[in-house]
Amino acid sequence: MKFFSTLSSCVACGLLASQVAAQTFQRLGACPKLGCIFPPDQADFLPGQWFDIRLEVHAPQNGSERVSYAQPDGNFTFTIGRDGQRAVPATQFFNLTEPRLETWNFTWYEDLFARAARTPSLVRVAGKAYRKVALYEPGNYVATLTYQNGSSTVANWTVRDIPTQRRAKNTIIFIGDGMTTNMITAARLMAHQMINGKYQTTMAMDQMPVLGHQMTHSLDSFITDSANSASALYTGHKSTVNALSVYRDSSPSNFDDPKVETIAELFREIYGGGVGIVSTAFIADATPAALTAHTSQRGRYGEVVDSFLRGITNYTWVNWTGPDVLFGGGAEQFYPNSRSFQGRDYYQEFRNAGYNVVLNNTSLQTASNSSKTLGIFSVSNMAKWLDRNIYKNNLNISRTAPNGGNGSATDQPGLKEMTLKALQILRARNPQNGFFLMSEAASVDKMMHVLDYDRALTELLELDDTIKATINYLRSVGELNNTQIIITADHGHGFDVMGSVDTRYLAQQTGDRNKRNAIGIYEESGLSQYVVPNASMPIGSDQNVVYSQGVNFPTNFDPRYTFYQGVAAFPDHREDYTVNKRGPRVPALNITGFSSTDYYVNYIDAVTGFVINGSLPVAADQGVHSLTDVPVFSQGPCQADFGGVYNSIDVFYKMAGCLGLSRRTPPRP
Amino acid sequence: MKFFSTLSSCVACGLLASQVAAQTFQRLGACPKLGCIFPPDQADFLPGQWFDIRLEVHAPQNGSERVSYAQPDGNFTFTIGRDGQRAVPATQFFNLTEPRLETWNFTWYEDLFARAARTPSLVRVAGKAYRKVALYEPGNYVATLTYQNGSSTVANWTVRDIPTQRRAKNTIIFIGDGMTTNMITAARLMAHQMINGKYQTTMAMDQMPVLGHQMTHSLDSFITDSANSASALYTGHKSTVNALSVYRDSSPSNFDDPKVETIAELFREIYGGGVGIVSTAFIADATPAALTAHTSQRGRYGEVVDSFLRGITNYTWVNWTGPDVLFGGGAEQFYPNSRSFQGRDYYQEFRNAGYNVVLNNTSLQTASNSSKTLGIFSVSNMAKWLDRNIYKNNLNISRTAPNGGNGSATDQPGLKEMTLKALQILRARNPQNGFFLMSEAASVDKMMHVLDYDRALTELLELDDTIKATINYLRSVGELNNTQIIITADHGHGFDVMGSVDTRYLAQQTGDRNKRNAIGIYEESGLSQYVVPNASMPIGSDQNVVYSQGVNFPTNFDPRYTFYQGVAAFPDHREDYTVNKRGPRVPALNITGFSSTDYYVNYIDAVTGFVINGSLPVAADQGVHSLTDVPVFSQGPCQADFGGVYNSIDVFYKMAGCLGLSRRTPPRP
Repeated sequence: MKFFSTLSSCVACGLLASQVAAQTFQRLGACPKLGCIFPPDQADFLPGQWFDIRLEVHAPQNGSERVSYAQPDGNFTFTIGRDGQRAVPATQFFNLTEPRLETWNFTWYEDLFARAARTPSLVRVAGKAYRKVALYEPGNYVATLTYQNGSSTVANWTVRDIPTQRRAKNTIIFIGDGMTTNMITAARLMAHQMINGKYQTTMAMDQMPVLGHQMTHSLDSFITDSANSASALYTGHKSTVNALSVYRDSSPSNFDDPKVETIAELFREIYGGGVGIVSTAFIADATPAALTAHTSQRGRYGEVVDSFLRGITNYTWVNWTGPDVLFGGGAEQFYPNSRSFQGRDYYQEFRNAGYNVVLNNTSLQTASNSSKTLGIFSVSNMAKWLDRNIYKNNLNISRTAPNGGNGSATDQPGLKEMTLKALQILRARNPQNGFFLMSEAASVDKMMHVLDYDRALTELLELDDTIKATINYLRSVGELNNTQIIITADHGHGFDVMGSVDTRYLAQQTGDRNKRNAIGIYEESGLSQYVVPNASMPIGSDQNVVYSQGVNFPTNFDPRYTFYQGVAAFPDHREDYTVNKRGPRVPALNITGFSSTDYYVNYIDAVTGFVINGSLPVAADQGVHSLTDVPVFSQGPCQADFGGVYNSIDVFYKMAGCLGLSRRTPPRP
Repeated sequence: MKFFSTLSSCVACGLLASQVAAQTFQRLGACPKLGCIFPPDQADFLPGQWFDIRLEVHAPQNGSERVSYAQPDGNFTFTIGRDGQRAVPATQFFNLTEPRLETWNFTWYEDLFARAARTPSLVRVAGKAYRKVALYEPGNYVATLTYQNGSSTVANWTVRDIPTQRRAKNTIIFIGDGMTTNMITAARLMAHQMINGKYQTTMAMDQMPVLGHQMTHSLDSFITDSANSASALYTGHKSTVNALSVYRDSSPSNFDDPKVETIAELFREIYGGGVGIVSTAFIADATPAALTAHTSQRGRYGEVVDSFLRGITNYTWVNWTGPDVLFGGGAEQFYPNSRSFQGRDYYQEFRNAGYNVVLNNTSLQTASNSSKTLGIFSVSNMAKWLDRNIYKNNLNISRTAPNGGNGSATDQPGLKEMTLKALQILRARNPQNGFFLMSEAASVDKMMHVLDYDRALTELLELDDTIKATINYLRSVGELNNTQIIITADHGHGFDVMGSVDTRYLAQQTGDRNKRNAIGIYEESGLSQYVVPNASMPIGSDQNVVYSQGVNFPTNFDPRYTFYQGVAAFPDHREDYTVNKRGPRVPALNITGFSSTDYYVNYIDAVTGFVINGSLPVAADQGVHSLTDVPVFSQGPCQADFGGVYNSIDVFYKMAGCLGLSRRTPPRP
């Protein structure tokens, strides 16, 4: 400390006190001191947005932060005041009774050495929670937790001055999970014709009038997962890996963490508008889940599905009666079995609540537009575009049928079919109040994880095709100018294309070093061969795909010259740079049979290829998320708001502002 | 062919005829048929922009395209017509005399098998060139080459309807060579404080009001180099790897390829405005070179330097008398030696032309603002920010002094110092006519190539600092609102950050697989430690750097927890994820001593690290460029033009439009 107090030009002095022991492992995210406030310092709020407050006082019993006393101070106090006004106790500020004191313990590892030695640090905690409060007046607030004889933790909160005027009737947010600018560039090259450096057609995304970048980092780590990042997009609050629309506290329960209201909840509560949730993932997965679930553990899939239908029931919260549309995979949380909530039949639970339930694309297309509709089309994640359209035999996997039987889910809709049907239902059911739709291309991410670049990029192309179809549909029904469209991602993977591969030459070389010489860089990358038909092969083969006119997908999935592509973090794997015709890749395996945390090259994943040893921890069997800012494309009444570079949480405030979701006064009880 | 002619829904049929044998190796880029026109089909032009036309007729003598005759048709004809008007011979259209017929041969390899077997294909060529022509009226033109008894090649050209009104007095284009959105994200995290997910400061780039993406692919390959991509940005014409502001023809000479006029040439010719060229590379490198050089081979460095001073002298072209400012490295093309053009002393050549010549930062800072100024500050590329500012001993490299002696170039300016001085000179010399300045952070690319992420990211931060200083300077002298600022890149590298590394843990493990377990992903990425001072280390050490207030560079270059970062294409190398204190990395070496095209891990590059075997051809000792679209940030009178997604050549048309560089009528002779 002494070093820095004399320096006027010191950078980062303010942080020093709280980060003396710079650590990647943290006792509790967003709580460097022994008193914790959630929402923490620097939190932003939409005026009138419901949230919970969690306070914790920590007494570390061992490790680098060890204190001399055995129990944390339970007599802490908590005040709130607007900038420049006198702070008052939170109970008085919010007109609440004092919540009860809770106590618990938790342990954590200070670093990898401690984890390897299995020497955790024990922390004893005293805490309280204030439930369902809101701040209505824009401005700065100071929340102060005072504990342990005068120690204090201060949280500076900002209620943003967001106009209350509604500018869009409808909002659609498309999320390409894990989608980066690099992937969009590669997908464009894979599917769009270029003549002498000029594209003859471009992506729907390329044609959006306004471009932005958003920063995806989490509250307490710079790499996010999809739970945390979806929560930021939907609530305006960054949180912690695995957390769905809550701040993660240290208590043992996954269901008592402090909640923040989501845009779906706000939109329903304020306007009674329609809500649609569409994903190609299992529907309890993080990106759809964060719209209605509030838990620190995204893996509580059964509870997530219950929250789609009933919202939050363990605490007073907004009155949630289910979305108009819920389409995706994940039947295992619906048919009665050990993975559905309390073993119940959620198809029946949804039917009991008035839902029409459809389990295949044929039924989806003929379903009424007037009912609330649940569409669950497969066990687990839905089939990929490449398998639904080109390598169709891969759909014949037993026990994927959404009814929970032994059958295969062969009649699955794609993202476009689901999204267009969702739009029809949302419009029919909400002609005046408008709708909010989240449509997720989930498997851009899932296929990047397993290094299946071809499948990832075609999922991205399906998203683009869905956007094109959505714009055409909205235009045809006269809703385009009423609808704010946003296309973004929740995080990236470190992917790029660096050249081409002569796969024939590669296959014929012996030895890994020789095989690498099949790669062409710079001028030898040549032109994309995915758009060139192969005159010697029959129409309809994977070397000569035929679509209807104007649809931009690759013409040839199995050209001799493929993309030399890859990610910057990977497990041990082999690469032959050809499309995997037998279904999604499995790059690494536990071949020793001894440990599920020690993965090696899966030889049969790319028999003719060569080995690239991993850089990831050996417990990783797949790639991981990355840091990069992700693009935001927008079109609609508020499109200009979405240009430039901003934080992921800003997407929420821009969307909420466009929909006029600020509340400057408390709602009538 | 037959398959497709019956299909009404066929995608890409139009290309089929010209790409029957889909090939990554090409006989000649942009010429799939046996008759070639440059500029080729799909070329765009600024009204009044000078260009050359090259025609070629090919007679392949062997290989897959073999023809039955021994010589190409020398009696080809060439016509041009505006859309809907009668085509006339080019000589009549441009009022030129018929150029002489030229003939030559060249060989190429059809694929890797042919290259391995050393069986080239021979092509005999007949050609002509039309020099220094222009199209003044916006619209579509059809150029037709007819040869060999009625075969024809058609080029559809578009002269864009660019307004002639000048909207900006000055234009500054900053080029972060190889800079991607991913790198900007990483640099921000390395240098800017974040509290609970909210940055307390951001990059200058983050604050630019308008964001776009540009596509960097080349004319005839989807991966570009910096020559080709710089040419696209400066001329509105994509070309071929290694080509500087020409289309590459097949003739043996590097100096007869068809030229296109650059924005620097246009700006000087039309307004007599000031031109500044600043780079941290050796100044003959591609990005600065493409502003005045016209050659198919960027490696002709001596000639490039001559072209800075005299422009093009081997053909009639624009009258070029040198830029107002030329600052960078590359003394080896200036002091008299075998690498300077004709062995001449180019310091003296520039002095003879009225230039003030400065060779270090001290002289630069005190130089007059009224003279044309040449500043050459080192042999080869200039020193990196990290070495100039933190690891200063690395400047002590003999024979780097710009005078060609044995000394070290220890008094080098950075990009900021060069750019600010350039602005002062440009303003002083061009108070009425304004200026065009290109300022390049060249070593973002150069350090990414050698996997030296720390140096690459600090070069990027220096660029950002330069942008901030430029905006402040322009504001202080009242020129900010007159100046269009563009910040972009010429291509990317497939870089990203995926987590953190406990470098202490890594160093203490034995065995590569154990070392990989030092990597933390997702929640274990934690927070950036580059911004956290180390209380146990002295101020001024590389763990506690102190700058003046408001300057955003890392506080600690050697934290225990570093970024887990990497690229998606790499040679064999080792990673220890720590800053390289001895200067730029050397990831791979020719350790066998037998071949300069067989590179292996350089052990001493990262002694405590682990091996990652390469995926690149074994002849590659460093990483390569990638496909990704790159960002364009803009601010100024025409900023709105630069939003959305577009081709790299569009940057030229947007800049030229903003400066009003269209000529609708021929200039007076």
